[in-house]
Amino acid sequence: MSLQGYRGRVLEILEAAGVAVGDRIRVRKGSQVFEGVLMPRSELGDDRHIVLKLDDGYNIGIAISEDLSVEKLGAFVEIKPQLPPIPIKKGEGLPHVAIVSTGGTIASRVDYRTGAVSPALTAQDLYSVVPELSNIAYIEAEVLYSIFSENMKPEYWAGMAKRAAKYIEEGVDGIVVTHGTDTLGYSSAALSFALRNLPCPVVFVGSQRSSDRPSSDAAMNLVSAVTFAGKSPIAEVVIVMHGESGDTYCYAHRGTKVRKCHTSRRDAFRSINAQPLARVKEGVVEVLTSNYSPRRESRDDFYVDAKFDEKVILIKSFPGMTGEFIDHAVDKGYHGIVLEGTGLGHVPVYVFDSIKRAVEEGLAVVMTSQCLWGRINMNVYSTGRELLAMGVIPGEDMLPETALVKLMWVLAKTQDLKEVKRLILTNIAGEISPRTCYSYYFGGEVE
Amino acid sequence: MSLQGYRGRVLEILEAAGVAVGDRIRVRKGSQVFEGVLMPRSELGDDRHIVLKLDDGYNIGIAISEDLSVEKLGAFVEIKPQLPPIPIKKGEGLPHVAIVSTGGTIASRVDYRTGAVSPALTAQDLYSVVPELSNIAYIEAEVLYSIFSENMKPEYWAGMAKRAAKYIEEGVDGIVVTHGTDTLGYSSAALSFALRNLPCPVVFVGSQRSSDRPSSDAAMNLVSAVTFAGKSPIAEVVIVMHGESGDTYCYAHRGTKVRKCHTSRRDAFRSINAQPLARVKEGVVEVLTSNYSPRRESRDDFYVDAKFDEKVILIKSFPGMTGEFIDHAVDKGYHGIVLEGTGLGHVPVYVFDSIKRAVEEGLAVVMTSQCLWGRINMNVYSTGRELLAMGVIPGEDMLPETALVKLMWVLAKTQDLKEVKRLILTNIAGEISPRTCYSYYFGGEVE
Repeated sequence: MSLQGYRGRVLEILEAAGVAVGDRIRVRKGSQVFEGVLMPRSELGDDRHIVLKLDDGYNIGIAISEDLSVEKLGAFVEIKPQLPPIPIKKGEGLPHVAIVSTGGTIASRVDYRTGAVSPALTAQDLYSVVPELSNIAYIEAEVLYSIFSENMKPEYWAGMAKRAAKYIEEGVDGIVVTHGTDTLGYSSAALSFALRNLPCPVVFVGSQRSSDRPSSDAAMNLVSAVTFAGKSPIAEVVIVMHGESGDTYCYAHRGTKVRKCHTSRRDAFRSINAQPLARVKEGVVEVLTSNYSPRRESRDDFYVDAKFDEKVILIKSFPGMTGEFIDHAVDKGYHGIVLEGTGLGHVPVYVFDSIKRAVEEGLAVVMTSQCLWGRINMNVYSTGRELLAMGVIPGEDMLPETALVKLMWVLAKTQDLKEVKRLILTNIAGEISPRTCYSYYFGGEVE
Repeated sequence: MSLQGYRGRVLEILEAAGVAVGDRIRVRKGSQVFEGVLMPRSELGDDRHIVLKLDDGYNIGIAISEDLSVEKLGAFVEIKPQLPPIPIKKGEGLPHVAIVSTGGTIASRVDYRTGAVSPALTAQDLYSVVPELSNIAYIEAEVLYSIFSENMKPEYWAGMAKRAAKYIEEGVDGIVVTHGTDTLGYSSAALSFALRNLPCPVVFVGSQRSSDRPSSDAAMNLVSAVTFAGKSPIAEVVIVMHGESGDTYCYAHRGTKVRKCHTSRRDAFRSINAQPLARVKEGVVEVLTSNYSPRRESRDDFYVDAKFDEKVILIKSFPGMTGEFIDHAVDKGYHGIVLEGTGLGHVPVYVFDSIKRAVEEGLAVVMTSQCLWGRINMNVYSTGRELLAMGVIPGEDMLPETALVKLMWVLAKTQDLKEVKRLILTNIAGEISPRTCYSYYFGGEVE
């Protein structure tokens, strides 16, 4: 067992003291003295804390410092997998944050006996693994789902929205949803539409590197997400993830303007056609824009509107595509199509007949761009004007993924095409910028 | 005809002066005086410039200002499309560059009598519009197609490849293909595969802003493309476009590693998972990598391999997708599917049965990532391994668009799945990087 999970400077200190996990030890730090059983760290843990189980059953994380010393008091005692109660009580001055786990890499916990990755974390696990959390918030945690995010479905979005609503109605200061990264951007868009008049932040967080890797981003992302949920003045649905590839800060991205842009980098999530709303660094939330919905005391007008019509398809255009997949959507009774066209909002003229038929049959057809950045403008070329005349709805500067989620949400309300168009063109949750800001492109996105 | 294309404040000024397009007018601005014929604007134009054709034949854009005044000098004169002859002859020490026009904004020329945009440029037009070209190369120009690039098809890729081959066999120093920007990246990938053992550069170029706009990028892009075609030591298929939003330099991007990432910015084209091959600035080609195919004297082993199988479809995955569109591709006799999955290469488990059936029916299924950056790795999670076991081919770090073009090219050779897999996993034209370079992400891509 030895010093499982410890690394870096803290590992050196423990090795020098000749102690092992399970030993009873004494830690002195300045005038403070702690006694207890040395606990293992999960690979999620940082390299700056010693975790002790105190005699009262609580786990604490002790940050290492110059004046810290470690002394062995007794030999190995078996650590029962009994978990401590939540170390702090509600109402002790810290914000109250609910953590809803849905699965994914961030929610994985290595079983120290078998090495297997179990799919979810309890609040107790979280405090044990990331002791800093106990300084940030009173945490209430629950496992809602245990699924890989590539298997997400609109019905789970509704489930998450309802669970978030329960906590909002109970008065929490913020909610963190742990989620796999693959479809994190779709889910954050879905809850952005589903949670109306939000009084507090709802923070999606994931992890790009699994918890058994030293380079895991899980701990910092989770700490930043809980910090944002507890303290941020921004009451929106956001994604909090690494802001650059190092461990310096996280960004909070608006839930409708963000996508996963790298398969493996820790800063895979990027705001598109927008700047991040805030930077979270060393426990501080630095707001980067004045354009946000503020936190509010009153929860009276908050409500959930979490119906999604699943009969919507996303079709990306390409040279040589045919209209037959559009026809198939019509034949199969779909209600809407989001086209991921080229450039300003084009598809090949040889699929126009299929699009015309789709609109005539009552399907809502929304145009977005596979460029990702920029804005649909179908008035520039005659082919675009022809599509507009057919009834294709320009998706403005919405991401294709966000437009898909929004169309599912709109079609669950109405299938009247005039009303669908009005709602698609109305900014509901920051998904449409009033004007294109050209500087929000690639690296040039933050002030 | 009146004031076609003018709008906003500039329209008010011209209306107040009682002038119309085709009139001879005088514009005073501070101490400056301009005389010429008022030109129409295309609808692409902004609302801040008056465009005059001066007596020397050049068009200028005059930004409106508080102290600007307009005066009518003479009535409408018909503007003749008279153009100067080609100024230089072959063999005067300048490289010989063929310009093949296929359509798109860069090849558009406003007909000042009708306001219509005519779709192509002759060599004479080019010299007239961009006089600097005559100092760079002896140009031979022809119009191959006049189509908007959103209407491109694999058969046109084959046509372009064959036309390029004709010029290569005739001994040109380089080829420029003018092309609409919407599907420029697909075409550059197609020719990257179709032109084997290329002895000289084949340069795709487009324009994000039409040539009657003061902000047009057409001239600088064309000059840079001809410079690269004539001088570059890199004998590959590339796209040359603005490197940043100003008019300072262009980048040459490898044809298989580039995509349009903004609907309207001039630096819309970006290398993905790669750095640009070269910078073209003030007539100089600065090579940025040592990893390229060099220009060669011998043309003996050059050949064209320009068959593409059109029975290939690109399907982007999303939460709630169903397998029925994959089933439809099987039922309709498609030969291949490129999946644009999530993250490291995942699709929902609820479409696995359809994928299994597709492979069993003999379709080639290639996995790419909607992240765009990074590399497919289906060995990390059990769901990925399951897809691999079914026979899904991991697309490495290929762009989905490039993987689509490559699969069309591979399936035109063989439908033996083992051989298809071997070819998809073989780097043919720089489309697969031997190792992932994490720094090629967003703004951090160039040395």
